[in-house]
Amino acid sequence: MKQAIDMAVDNVRRDGGPFAALVVRDRIVIASGANQVTRSNDPTAHAEIVAIREACRVLGDYQLTACEIYASCEPCPMCLGAIYWSRPARIYYAATHDDAARAGFDDTFIYRQMASTPSQRTIPMIRVQEELRTRPFEEWARKGDRVRY
Amino acid sequence: MKQAIDMAVDNVRRDGGPFAALVVRDRIVIASGANQVTRSNDPTAHAEIVAIREACRVLGDYQLTACEIYASCEPCPMCLGAIYWSRPARIYYAATHDDAARAGFDDTFIYRQMASTPSQRTIPMIRVQEELRTRPFEEWARKGDRVRY
Repeated sequence: MKQAIDMAVDNVRRDGGPFAALVVRDRIVIASGANQVTRSNDPTAHAEIVAIREACRVLGDYQLTACEIYASCEPCPMCLGAIYWSRPARIYYAATHDDAARAGFDDTFIYRQMASTPSQRTIPMIRVQEELRTRPFEEWARKGDRVRY
Repeated sequence: MKQAIDMAVDNVRRDGGPFAALVVRDRIVIASGANQVTRSNDPTAHAEIVAIREACRVLGDYQLTACEIYASCEPCPMCLGAIYWSRPARIYYAATHDDAARAGFDDTFIYRQMASTPSQRTIPMIRVQEELRTRPFEEWARKGDRVRY
């Protein structure tokens, strides 16, 4: 965990956000990531996302079974979603949402938005009535060799 | 929206998941994305994430102000998080969570996990008591030229 925190401190010095994460398997660090949102013009380049993508590249898999993630801070909703899709065994984190909020990173707001219905969110989410909306799922169901994820 | 749905159908035929998204600005499609999770071994490569990253690359910005996203399906929690971080003006979607769940994509489970406390989640999230945990944020606060995101 000290390594993740040190990496987050270094990342601030290199014009990144104050976050870093490591992916560990069998006690070996197989990938790491630091926040690169502003440096790489990528709003999804949070530390955990960068580390998960790198770990999957290293493993040649889209699942992180038997891996652990060490995050310098409690994951935001986007990163928590990525964690659920990549399915590591467990997550360790150091700083909390409250620590992050005090530093100006208000994940709590997004967590609250998640709990709202789409039409009540601050970014309007509008459902378009479209008869063909389930066609992609029908195509998927018909596909014999589909790879579930 | 028909374009997004057609793209999702095509993506299944090209061994991708049944989802696609477009980013539109001033009524022009500036980026598109289809699910590439299994094809590119990237659990974060959902349609919306791929489209958001591409749109940001095109615009040279980490924000999608004044853009709209057309998604073939209601976004999952990870993608909804990415939407909040990239701040488009609004989202249009066709298929719902329920449609997706019937096709075997159970976002609702992840939404429910979000609402749980970290220690109650099915992927254990363990807080490590670490005195140095706020050091990255202190470094960030000291940085005069920090770019907020």
